[in-house]
Amino acid sequence: MLIIGERINTSRKQIEPAVVKRDAAFIQEEARKQKEAGADFIDVNCGTLVEEEPAGLAWLVQTVQAEVDTPLSLDSPNPAALQKALAVHKGKPIVNSISMEKQRYSQLLPLLQEYKPAVVALSMGDEGLPNTVEERYELGSRLVDGLVSAGISLSDIYLDPLVRPVGTDPQAGVTLLKTIKRFRETWPEIHIICGLSNISYGMPVRRLINQSFLVLAIQAGLDAAILDPLDQQLMGLLYATRFLVGEDEYGVDYLQAFRSGRLE
Amino acid sequence: MLIIGERINTSRKQIEPAVVKRDAAFIQEEARKQKEAGADFIDVNCGTLVEEEPAGLAWLVQTVQAEVDTPLSLDSPNPAALQKALAVHKGKPIVNSISMEKQRYSQLLPLLQEYKPAVVALSMGDEGLPNTVEERYELGSRLVDGLVSAGISLSDIYLDPLVRPVGTDPQAGVTLLKTIKRFRETWPEIHIICGLSNISYGMPVRRLINQSFLVLAIQAGLDAAILDPLDQQLMGLLYATRFLVGEDEYGVDYLQAFRSGRLE
Repeated sequence: MLIIGERINTSRKQIEPAVVKRDAAFIQEEARKQKEAGADFIDVNCGTLVEEEPAGLAWLVQTVQAEVDTPLSLDSPNPAALQKALAVHKGKPIVNSISMEKQRYSQLLPLLQEYKPAVVALSMGDEGLPNTVEERYELGSRLVDGLVSAGISLSDIYLDPLVRPVGTDPQAGVTLLKTIKRFRETWPEIHIICGLSNISYGMPVRRLINQSFLVLAIQAGLDAAILDPLDQQLMGLLYATRFLVGEDEYGVDYLQAFRSGRLE
Repeated sequence: MLIIGERINTSRKQIEPAVVKRDAAFIQEEARKQKEAGADFIDVNCGTLVEEEPAGLAWLVQTVQAEVDTPLSLDSPNPAALQKALAVHKGKPIVNSISMEKQRYSQLLPLLQEYKPAVVALSMGDEGLPNTVEERYELGSRLVDGLVSAGISLSDIYLDPLVRPVGTDPQAGVTLLKTIKRFRETWPEIHIICGLSNISYGMPVRRLINQSFLVLAIQAGLDAAILDPLDQQLMGLLYATRFLVGEDEYGVDYLQAFRSGRLE
């Protein structure tokens, strides 16, 4: 299970001023805490800076990589920002994200071919969010086929089935879990990723719905998630679920997380 | 989803002295709190009293039913205790539990035929706990066939696939979930129940494993659970999971639990 730590995002209250002021110590502390809590990748997103995003994203990459050896998830749809960030990133990052939207796809593909990062691929096209399992599968297949024929290996693709809120679509949870299963059966080598929290949009006590959804999604075949690794309850359920579904035999990882004080 | 509140059990610290002293107010408070938190049944167990168990169990039934209108789960393998408890119970209780152990089966069956309660049926025989899905299914089938031919209706049977600790058997979780699915496919009308907490026996931070297991078991087809309804995190995950798997359309029950202050 790969954890992408989501905390360095300028849509969060304390992050935007820290990036604007180039407060390296604050950002590095956020990166270090996430790594210590189990993050495999650190996501960096400064989309709220708009025209300043490219410079901000490159600064974030250099600042985070000066502190931790964890690779980054470069979270932007903006080709200029990604270009600058990819140029300074050491090692192999994840580009987060490409989709089947025509303009986005054609602008980002050359960057993927030049820098060979891993990539999050959203099952979304110009016609908007897909509804059914079939629509998601069809979009996913087109993405995977396109990326593979552009020279990207299956194991570098993080396919995202796109979460819709269960508050507005009662079938959203069931559809998502079926889509994850279908993706997993079709491409055993691929990564399947979700941004969890959309599922609970508009509902109270969102963390309960996010937690339950993470448990169910791991069983369905999810092997990567963008989340807050400092959320001990969520991370605890993640370790417990891997143990229960047979991905962590004898609870070796579970017990190690416990012994290092990461299970509350 | 049917919740059986597990708190009135003399193996818990404060309960045994309360039953011994016949402290009705304390027991009634435990019953009332569980009902308010969403319990559909109140389990009563005073097995630690040994020879005093029959008198204790009958007193518990009368004491709890003087306070709440919730039916009880009469939790004992002791025919004498169950006889006395069944004789004073108003309405339809659950007998918890019968199994395929020969002596237990032959002693309890006449009570089931006389009082017509619902019954928890453990997939366990004289040969001990089953290991595989197949063994559990075979024991479950014999139980269901026996009970049905003794005149007990499918909808009064709560089949328990018997939880083994995942700490000693790495396949315990996977096997249990497969067994629940197989039971559900075979008998859509039956109830499937678990005592959750065995799954985490011997592991640290047991509540995380119990929580994850409840989520996975509900998706597999579990529709009843013996648990502590005052555990807001566990109950919150239960409501969230029913919502996600499509058992609570538009989150009507989830939102009601939230509005009544039961989701923290």
